[in-house]
Amino acid sequence: MRDINQFTITDAVKSSFSTEPGSRFESLLHGLIEHLHDYTREHQITHEEWMRVLMFLYDCGKISTPERHEFILLSDVLGWSALVDMINSKGGATEGSNLGPFYLDDAPRKDLGAHLADGRDGVTVLVHGKVTDSLHNPLAGAIIDTWQADGAGTYPIQEQEQGQDKFDLRGVFETDEQGRYWYTTVLPKPYTVPYDGPVGELLRAGNRHAWRPAHLHYIIRHPGMAAITTEVFFENMEYLDNDAVFGVRRSLIATLAPARGTVPDLPAEAKFDAVVEFDFVLAPEG
Amino acid sequence: MRDINQFTITDAVKSSFSTEPGSRFESLLHGLIEHLHDYTREHQITHEEWMRVLMFLYDCGKISTPERHEFILLSDVLGWSALVDMINSKGGATEGSNLGPFYLDDAPRKDLGAHLADGRDGVTVLVHGKVTDSLHNPLAGAIIDTWQADGAGTYPIQEQEQGQDKFDLRGVFETDEQGRYWYTTVLPKPYTVPYDGPVGELLRAGNRHAWRPAHLHYIIRHPGMAAITTEVFFENMEYLDNDAVFGVRRSLIATLAPARGTVPDLPAEAKFDAVVEFDFVLAPEG
Repeated sequence: MRDINQFTITDAVKSSFSTEPGSRFESLLHGLIEHLHDYTREHQITHEEWMRVLMFLYDCGKISTPERHEFILLSDVLGWSALVDMINSKGGATEGSNLGPFYLDDAPRKDLGAHLADGRDGVTVLVHGKVTDSLHNPLAGAIIDTWQADGAGTYPIQEQEQGQDKFDLRGVFETDEQGRYWYTTVLPKPYTVPYDGPVGELLRAGNRHAWRPAHLHYIIRHPGMAAITTEVFFENMEYLDNDAVFGVRRSLIATLAPARGTVPDLPAEAKFDAVVEFDFVLAPEG
Repeated sequence: MRDINQFTITDAVKSSFSTEPGSRFESLLHGLIEHLHDYTREHQITHEEWMRVLMFLYDCGKISTPERHEFILLSDVLGWSALVDMINSKGGATEGSNLGPFYLDDAPRKDLGAHLADGRDGVTVLVHGKVTDSLHNPLAGAIIDTWQADGAGTYPIQEQEQGQDKFDLRGVFETDEQGRYWYTTVLPKPYTVPYDGPVGELLRAGNRHAWRPAHLHYIIRHPGMAAITTEVFFENMEYLDNDAVFGVRRSLIATLAPARGTVPDLPAEAKFDAVVEFDFVLAPEG
């Protein structure tokens, strides 16, 4: 019979799976087993440490709901989500960044120029820019799906029990024939990721804060182009250098300028205090 | 500001934790981040794969209860539990093996020679042996905590709803002045680990079965000696070569001999069909 030991067990576990040779599943599974076993041997993991990890995962499972996904949060604070975003960003396109937990795939369509923050306190901003391909050709009819926190750092979906409309501060726009988009909203504030669970305990154990810099979320789509999920940040704001979830890229930081009259060529009639301009670049699919 | 990319993010995440330099926590955390990120870069993990892993963990959390710990099961089928057992086995001592999910820390004390399987069908076996130190000196007063499945492969704790006593097929013995232990019980049968959850799905995706070879569970303790958690298997039985949780070691396979009258020097009066002999060796603590 086979006699496995701490060095041969890795191959024994790999070969216990009868996966299709050379398949993606086999490659991912073998890689996972190798890294898990190497980590354990390199650090001589004790039974207490092993059980601590398993109980941590158990606790993450227990606090999770469809609205509160502690494993995504864990991925976020370990930079795993950001690394996957980076690896899968296409050269020439706008860099990807965190989807985050608050996306809704059925937000209402709105007309260009709409105001997303009726009755909201805070700094009113005009957000505008273009969607183009990587040769700067405007993409007409691109879909801009945006969502954001309010001027206090809260997402309306988090306050549904207090009567907030979960679709507030969300909108789906379509670029005009020049690839342009524009709307007004309130400037979002920084906020913390949830830190009342196991991931918060990990942050505290490592003396880390839970803050994210203020940002706007976007998913940009256009037929024939690879969709991008990303975030837009604002220069000179807090936490750009130590985002709890590593979502900031230098290329995703927009200028936040005081409003100086209207913006040239834009039929924006609303009042606003400041202007944010950000252009999105899409690369072809595949 | 810092501009992290897919290569610099690993150091950025490590340094985001302010851990005590050189501490065990820092070492384990940095190692985890490095392996997670290396794995992701090596395999160019896609968003779909990343989300599949997170949903798998979410599903493991949802099916878990204090009695059904899917993360331990995951650790078991990936050989992680076995590897931790191997790394932490002390030279000269009996090798460790899986604790498994069915241990109870308050099983009843029983006298040497007791029968653990009243009214149970199956092969009746005398189980006996010695507990010694690594120089073969007998250890009197060693505590032998044992639990097992029945002749159908079921643990009574799994059938409490059908009126089974959860302490059935369990016993805590103390070795005599010669370090000996003996008791009779029923020969356990092979059984499957639970495969109705996400881990079962993983096994099926990898064309693996969920069977474990028949075994007896033990925790052996003695003052001044390192406790061991282990399992004893039987030669020539099914699944020794492909235990679903990698618990088998060659050194943990006992001979299963037909009963030929009584066992020399043992005051065993009960009837039994077969004899299992296994000696446990403990190493000093620390």
